[in-house]
Amino acid sequence: MGLAINAVHLSYVVHVLGVAGAVMVLFWNIYFRGGLAWSSSTNKNLIFNVHPVLMLIGLVIMGGEALVLGIIGIYMAFKNHNESGIANLYSLHSWIGIGVIVLYGVQWIYGFLVFFYPGGSGELRKESVPWHVLFGMFIYILVVANSALGFLEKLTFLESSGIEKYGSEAFLVNFTAIVAILYGTFVLLTALSRAPTEDNHHYSAI
Amino acid sequence: MGLAINAVHLSYVVHVLGVAGAVMVLFWNIYFRGGLAWSSSTNKNLIFNVHPVLMLIGLVIMGGEALVLGIIGIYMAFKNHNESGIANLYSLHSWIGIGVIVLYGVQWIYGFLVFFYPGGSGELRKESVPWHVLFGMFIYILVVANSALGFLEKLTFLESSGIEKYGSEAFLVNFTAIVAILYGTFVLLTALSRAPTEDNHHYSAI
Repeated sequence: MGLAINAVHLSYVVHVLGVAGAVMVLFWNIYFRGGLAWSSSTNKNLIFNVHPVLMLIGLVIMGGEALVLGIIGIYMAFKNHNESGIANLYSLHSWIGIGVIVLYGVQWIYGFLVFFYPGGSGELRKESVPWHVLFGMFIYILVVANSALGFLEKLTFLESSGIEKYGSEAFLVNFTAIVAILYGTFVLLTALSRAPTEDNHHYSAI
Repeated sequence: MGLAINAVHLSYVVHVLGVAGAVMVLFWNIYFRGGLAWSSSTNKNLIFNVHPVLMLIGLVIMGGEALVLGIIGIYMAFKNHNESGIANLYSLHSWIGIGVIVLYGVQWIYGFLVFFYPGGSGELRKESVPWHVLFGMFIYILVVANSALGFLEKLTFLESSGIEKYGSEAFLVNFTAIVAILYGTFVLLTALSRAPTEDNHHYSAI
């Protein structure tokens, strides 16, 4: 993987640009546009202002961060394998991992081009939204499932090399995987839930 | 697992009752109720008749079949382990498998009691439907993901005992897991899609 150092270096650039972008969009909306508000009886524009802030910091920056960290994470497995003489890309975890990072990249780039810059036509955006959401949830489910595959694979290697099957490390790894699955479940539930309304701030249902 | 023989014997009873129930609901709707139809301009009742047939054969019989086959499948792993002196219930695959079969059982029994017999109130059914669907899809995702975990775990054992990492068996197992994931994806997509309408038999979207 000759791209190794490039990916790490690029991630520095991404971080700097990400922090800059987050500061700039916050500054724009707070200083120039009057601030952010969940609800306001006098200035409804404050409600809109939350939109560019969350889309940039959430989907573009944190989503891009996730992509870069994913690429570095994958690289570290290849690096270890190559330096230890271990075979690459034979396991289901590795196959799904490569597939998912490619799908994630396609999804991210598509979202960037159509919804952010340069931006597609209104019709294209409107038609893209449900498929983009569905594809994103599909990729996210694969990401969570593949993390469970990775925990199981690594622990199976360790146990076949002698660590305790019912020991503290084994339990920690299994419970980490279960926490990851529960985390992913609640992320998806949140994505599928309604936002709270003025009248009922605690209401949330499918 | 002292329930072993009981589960296998019970599955015979379930099969007989299942075949009987399927024949009876088909006979009722075809012989007494005039038949089944996707569309009809003269007798709309034929459209309704598809409902009890698919609910009984699909959710109740095939869903129950799936539960029984799942229990027998789990039992066979314990049987092999116990007869070979292999530890039980230490792996993530086994933990999630037990959890999922319990959740599947709860879901199936709840559905049977509320929607089939004795049946809940109209209000309870109405409120239950979206949660029942969501919970069912959640369980199904876990089922598919756990099958991938199982394929990976078994193959990792086999490869650490010497089978080829890039051999035909390894490829068959990995591709079986990928086909299972694609199958599950299209099952969920189908569940989320619209039924075709009179005007547009090929239309299907989220």
